[in-house]
Amino acid sequence: MSLKPADSAFLDRVASHVGAGVLSEPEPRYLEEPRGRFAGQAAAVAKPRTVEEVAALVRLCNEASVPVVPYGGGTGLVGGQVKGEGVVPLVISLERMRAIRDVFPEENVIIAEAGAVLEAVQAAAQEADRLFPLSLAAQGSCQIGGNLATNAGGVNVLRYGNARDLCLGLEAVLPSGEIWHGLSRLRKDNTGYDLKNLLIGAEGSLGIITAASLKLFARPVGEGTALMAVPSVAAALDLLAITRDHVGEAVSAFELIHREGLDFLAETMPEVRQPFAEKPDWCVLIDLGLGAGQEPQSVLEAIFATALERDLVLDGLIAQSETQRGEFWSVRESIPLANRKIGAILSNDISIPISRIAEFVVEGHTALAKLGPLRINAFGHLGDGNLHYNVYPPKGENRNNYNHLIDDVKGIVNGLVHKYNGSISAEHGIGRMKTGELERYGDPVKLATMRAIKSALDPKGIMNPGVVLKA
Amino acid sequence: MSLKPADSAFLDRVASHVGAGVLSEPEPRYLEEPRGRFAGQAAAVAKPRTVEEVAALVRLCNEASVPVVPYGGGTGLVGGQVKGEGVVPLVISLERMRAIRDVFPEENVIIAEAGAVLEAVQAAAQEADRLFPLSLAAQGSCQIGGNLATNAGGVNVLRYGNARDLCLGLEAVLPSGEIWHGLSRLRKDNTGYDLKNLLIGAEGSLGIITAASLKLFARPVGEGTALMAVPSVAAALDLLAITRDHVGEAVSAFELIHREGLDFLAETMPEVRQPFAEKPDWCVLIDLGLGAGQEPQSVLEAIFATALERDLVLDGLIAQSETQRGEFWSVRESIPLANRKIGAILSNDISIPISRIAEFVVEGHTALAKLGPLRINAFGHLGDGNLHYNVYPPKGENRNNYNHLIDDVKGIVNGLVHKYNGSISAEHGIGRMKTGELERYGDPVKLATMRAIKSALDPKGIMNPGVVLKA
Repeated sequence: MSLKPADSAFLDRVASHVGAGVLSEPEPRYLEEPRGRFAGQAAAVAKPRTVEEVAALVRLCNEASVPVVPYGGGTGLVGGQVKGEGVVPLVISLERMRAIRDVFPEENVIIAEAGAVLEAVQAAAQEADRLFPLSLAAQGSCQIGGNLATNAGGVNVLRYGNARDLCLGLEAVLPSGEIWHGLSRLRKDNTGYDLKNLLIGAEGSLGIITAASLKLFARPVGEGTALMAVPSVAAALDLLAITRDHVGEAVSAFELIHREGLDFLAETMPEVRQPFAEKPDWCVLIDLGLGAGQEPQSVLEAIFATALERDLVLDGLIAQSETQRGEFWSVRESIPLANRKIGAILSNDISIPISRIAEFVVEGHTALAKLGPLRINAFGHLGDGNLHYNVYPPKGENRNNYNHLIDDVKGIVNGLVHKYNGSISAEHGIGRMKTGELERYGDPVKLATMRAIKSALDPKGIMNPGVVLKA
Repeated sequence: MSLKPADSAFLDRVASHVGAGVLSEPEPRYLEEPRGRFAGQAAAVAKPRTVEEVAALVRLCNEASVPVVPYGGGTGLVGGQVKGEGVVPLVISLERMRAIRDVFPEENVIIAEAGAVLEAVQAAAQEADRLFPLSLAAQGSCQIGGNLATNAGGVNVLRYGNARDLCLGLEAVLPSGEIWHGLSRLRKDNTGYDLKNLLIGAEGSLGIITAASLKLFARPVGEGTALMAVPSVAAALDLLAITRDHVGEAVSAFELIHREGLDFLAETMPEVRQPFAEKPDWCVLIDLGLGAGQEPQSVLEAIFATALERDLVLDGLIAQSETQRGEFWSVRESIPLANRKIGAILSNDISIPISRIAEFVVEGHTALAKLGPLRINAFGHLGDGNLHYNVYPPKGENRNNYNHLIDDVKGIVNGLVHKYNGSISAEHGIGRMKTGELERYGDPVKLATMRAIKSALDPKGIMNPGVVLKA
């Protein structure tokens, strides 16, 4: 199957079918990605206003064998939104389809179009006195369609699940240009294969999500936040178990922070207030969202007391006000910014079976130390087993002087992840960046099955070619 | 593609490959299903002991175009486990693969083989001081592989999700006979298409699940149960919202009971103690599982007080002991048995968008009343929008005298479910019983996509033919 470029004759045809107003010149922002590792190309950017227009566009592309790159907020970190090589595609941006179509507070459901910015979905939920819990750094610009296409994670996965777990139904345009009307509001529906979860996480390679029905939750009545210094990663995991014994699912976030992250903050963002007088090697941020009748501060005190008896905590700070909660969270949220200022040799988004994280961290540090005096900032969503395991040059040195080590670092980290039955992409996806690693480390029977599904649903291979699977 | 029967030459070939001990005569129990609506056929029942033996069996069937019927506990209610028509299949029963392969309490994971009985999985979790929350009437005989293949539901879906939500990874044999090794223990893994969720709920038509890694949970510290009489279904839904405001996710079950169910109990099982002096039209059973520091009875009292102020409850009983909790639950759990003794004209396993259930119930009762003085017992998992909406003859009459009404009743119920954007199969699946209804009410684009996936993964159509999709 050979793909054809979106040439001017094709664009004329598109304009005559969907109206000239849908097509626009490809501004540079559609051809960039946050880490600057890929540059995209596009003949034009189509900005449809309705699912029918998306369907018409995809049908035309399918007929003409023209590749399609679906475009959400453009914040993905693995190059799924930029096709830099091969045949020039049509980019289809969902930005005009950003309506909140409906909110059903009494059934905890919201229906949003794919182009709705995540923060807008959160705000619409809040307006109905509900919570839409998906929360991540890019929420001011990422779009819910992209969040679903990539199965986004973030800080509240521990309690509420990732994007996949928050979705009840989809409306989507399949590679044929047909529309699947699947905006179910049902909590239980066992009628046939799970097409929804097949599209979620397929990164636009099996179709374009145009709208989604999403789960809402009761807003927690009492929220509380603590920072607790722990002697080890193993102790942090025991502390998580204690926290769950106290409050069950009400642990909204349980985030690990390494001393290196606090050092990076001190070095690059001295305006962020350091919580501890002396920086601990490891600490965790615990966020609780409780029901009526439970007082967050006293619950956190009880958790701390239990942990102290078992020598699992060295020090603890319980936020005494919303301002202080904000300060604690700003420590966690500023670390990725500080990381960027330091400049990583290599960032990794990995997950490890939770009981083996402590071992992994020790073994990783030991193995990487053999390459030189590198700095490692391991932080992230400990409760999910998801670490952002980033490797930096020694203090004062530029990462560009360490490019020769990238392959060695990558080999060590991926090798260890594989050894520990972990994942090389916990929440960012495969995109175009990691297709080679997926081929190397993925289960061959699963890969063959993925290829069979891709061929069955997209025989011409027009949908986001080169993403997840090599084109 | 024409299928070939599992004839004696084929069985000889199987015996020579996997050993004669794997094959056995098809005892009657493999050819029956609980409602007695279908009778199955089988040339033999294969009882493999390892995933490699399952793979060898499926490979041989695939080579010879012999149909395969995967067999779990045999408790399915839609005929997925009995192939009564067409080419005689080989039944593959997973009953010998029932090991609990591993328990990881510190990461809340258990790995069980497909043939493990659900109660055995629950018991293994309890032994590790954890909870495996899937809970349903057939738990003493259904198997976890079948629970996953059918995406089973039950009473704790509200809090913990259905079988799909409890599964982290699978080991499965695909129609080709290849083994997918996907027993992940990871909470987050964004590496490729979601093959796991494709197999879950496919009812054995895309492969045979041989083992699963499953989520465990902290056991609730304090449990409490109440029965509250409510003036209407709408009030019951408001009561659910109040309950969630008080305890968040800690509502383990929220079950609706209609007066008809209590009447059926009084009529057929007088030994079950009636909770209320006067039977209310509607009542709900609320089950809470709380963390440390919350006293279930006082929380339930606070919920009742709040609901009473808003005229949402008429009466309330809060269990004062474990014995009383058991009594309350036995009311709920005895209703399906009483139903069976009364004998339904038609049972329905439906779901409706939660905010429309109250309307649906009123409209359904009105429409069915036009057919005659039928009795309706609507009960079930209200918090999930899932009702078992069963229709019975007038008191003292036999259902067999009402067979002429089955199609009318079915037409009214399914028509209303469709009108309210509900599902004709909330938790029982499609099986062989509802393939026609799925074709009629399902989204045509989704159905075409399902067929494309089935053809891609199982081009000869050997895997449980006639299930989910017509053969």
